[in-house]
Amino acid sequence: MTSGATPLGPGGEFDRLRAVFRRLGPRLRGAGDDAALITVDGARLALSCDLAIEGQHFRLGWITAEEVGWRACAAALSDLAAVAAEPLGVLAAVGVPDGRDGEFLERLMDGIARAAESAGAVLWGGDLVRAPQVTIDVTVVGRADRPVRRSGAQPGDGLWVTGLLGAPRAAVDAWEAGRTPAPGARERFAHPVPRIAEAAWLRDHGASALIDLSDGLVGDAGHVAAASEVVLVVETERVPVHPAVTGDEAVTLALLGGEEYELLVTLPPGFGAADRSTFVQRFTLPLTRIGTVAAGKGVQVLRDGRLVAPGPGFSHF
Amino acid sequence: MTSGATPLGPGGEFDRLRAVFRRLGPRLRGAGDDAALITVDGARLALSCDLAIEGQHFRLGWITAEEVGWRACAAALSDLAAVAAEPLGVLAAVGVPDGRDGEFLERLMDGIARAAESAGAVLWGGDLVRAPQVTIDVTVVGRADRPVRRSGAQPGDGLWVTGLLGAPRAAVDAWEAGRTPAPGARERFAHPVPRIAEAAWLRDHGASALIDLSDGLVGDAGHVAAASEVVLVVETERVPVHPAVTGDEAVTLALLGGEEYELLVTLPPGFGAADRSTFVQRFTLPLTRIGTVAAGKGVQVLRDGRLVAPGPGFSHF
Repeated sequence: MTSGATPLGPGGEFDRLRAVFRRLGPRLRGAGDDAALITVDGARLALSCDLAIEGQHFRLGWITAEEVGWRACAAALSDLAAVAAEPLGVLAAVGVPDGRDGEFLERLMDGIARAAESAGAVLWGGDLVRAPQVTIDVTVVGRADRPVRRSGAQPGDGLWVTGLLGAPRAAVDAWEAGRTPAPGARERFAHPVPRIAEAAWLRDHGASALIDLSDGLVGDAGHVAAASEVVLVVETERVPVHPAVTGDEAVTLALLGGEEYELLVTLPPGFGAADRSTFVQRFTLPLTRIGTVAAGKGVQVLRDGRLVAPGPGFSHF
Repeated sequence: MTSGATPLGPGGEFDRLRAVFRRLGPRLRGAGDDAALITVDGARLALSCDLAIEGQHFRLGWITAEEVGWRACAAALSDLAAVAAEPLGVLAAVGVPDGRDGEFLERLMDGIARAAESAGAVLWGGDLVRAPQVTIDVTVVGRADRPVRRSGAQPGDGLWVTGLLGAPRAAVDAWEAGRTPAPGARERFAHPVPRIAEAAWLRDHGASALIDLSDGLVGDAGHVAAASEVVLVVETERVPVHPAVTGDEAVTLALLGGEEYELLVTLPPGFGAADRSTFVQRFTLPLTRIGTVAAGKGVQVLRDGRLVAPGPGFSHF
């Protein structure tokens, strides 16, 4: 939610628009986290929406109709994982161009429904209109009895990340350069998995702050640092790079590539190797300590113990 | 929700797509009404979403940025009125083209927020992305302790409608013909008012079935007839036509024009002139009896007591 980053590249102008959107201020209650957190008649809920548009967030030559639907719904569900909420249901607003047939729509909706079901959610309803491009807005609603916010990171906590990074951006870069992405990179772009159960486990094991990687590791670390009023120190060597991401830019893609839908989490100092091992066995998913929370402000990226960002080499941070 | 009708005219092909969308079946729980009705931890909620796209649902040469935002949010809120729910909050997913500046976005969001506030709802959050056309999906959440469904109409009930009809369609027809619409017609298109308080009052006065007029009077009467397994008889002479709608086609526009966001309601036979008078005084809004509910199926349109639809003159019903 309110993460307008697209793999096709937001520019400076669009960043200014996003600032306006955020600034709209007190009306946007609860907007400090990935999902809005509200209480209705004693029920604690998390809500979020995620808008995906053909040509901006995906191209139909890249992925199938089912994958378009899956990806749009998984992206929205990931906002619930980001606050450790339990998905309940989704609404899908869909726009399709003239000439798209019923089979296309059925496959698209099947992808949305399968992603929802995989996370324990029900497709409650939606809207269908004509649109010049395939357009999908998925709204998700979850139960958030014990949400984890962005704001709880404490100096001394460890900084951890789930999964292996950089692959979605590597896939987009390949497509945009006219190449075929590595199968592993394509799969990460087409079929992201919201880390719902993982988020609940991390909460139950002391997670102090949580966010999903939709804006990229450094960008999302910045959101946590700002909300928690701490500095997040990232050690480049520790960042887990997806094996499908190769070449000189691999670590940069893992640091800056967005739409990963993995979790960045701060955990108390007592969370150690045995806990990590339990997580990895339970979810068959890497969990990697990539740094530390300290007193201060912002994000520091270290390489070989030396500060490389903020710095001239990362001026776009 | 699931009302894909646009003032720019859905065709037969698109109607088939809508049928596919509806047929997606058991996964679309609660989709028989304008809003999905769910219960979470004892809280009874209504949820709906409404997707509006530049060039399909509005043109920026027709209405201002504030009006685009207001209209999109009011359309979604009208789905809550359609089940007599009390609005709580909204999420706004917005797409804007490159080149739109911060002021445009501020005005658009201001229109959304003002519509929400006018209905007692809060802007909880949203999403902002780049899009080739201005794109707005508003998701609304309301409390629905005593919802009124489409399915409760009983033979013998009266068939009533709020407001004066035909103006939004007359405005679109004027714009499309290169004319300037009558001010009253333009206002009805640009600034629809969701009938939230009116719906609650009608529920408290015995409403047996309720729907908002997003697909047009005859189309929405058909939805109520199907859900309630009755026939809705509409007497053409009684249909309240907006004074800005003139010419030979005025009654046809009032019968078939969509996106009115007025309420069609069935009320028990005991609901009479005194009740009507109380409503009109309280809300400064017409409430007109336009027909009757009877045993049977579908919608019958009468003129001078003679059946004109279904019939050759209304073959597109």
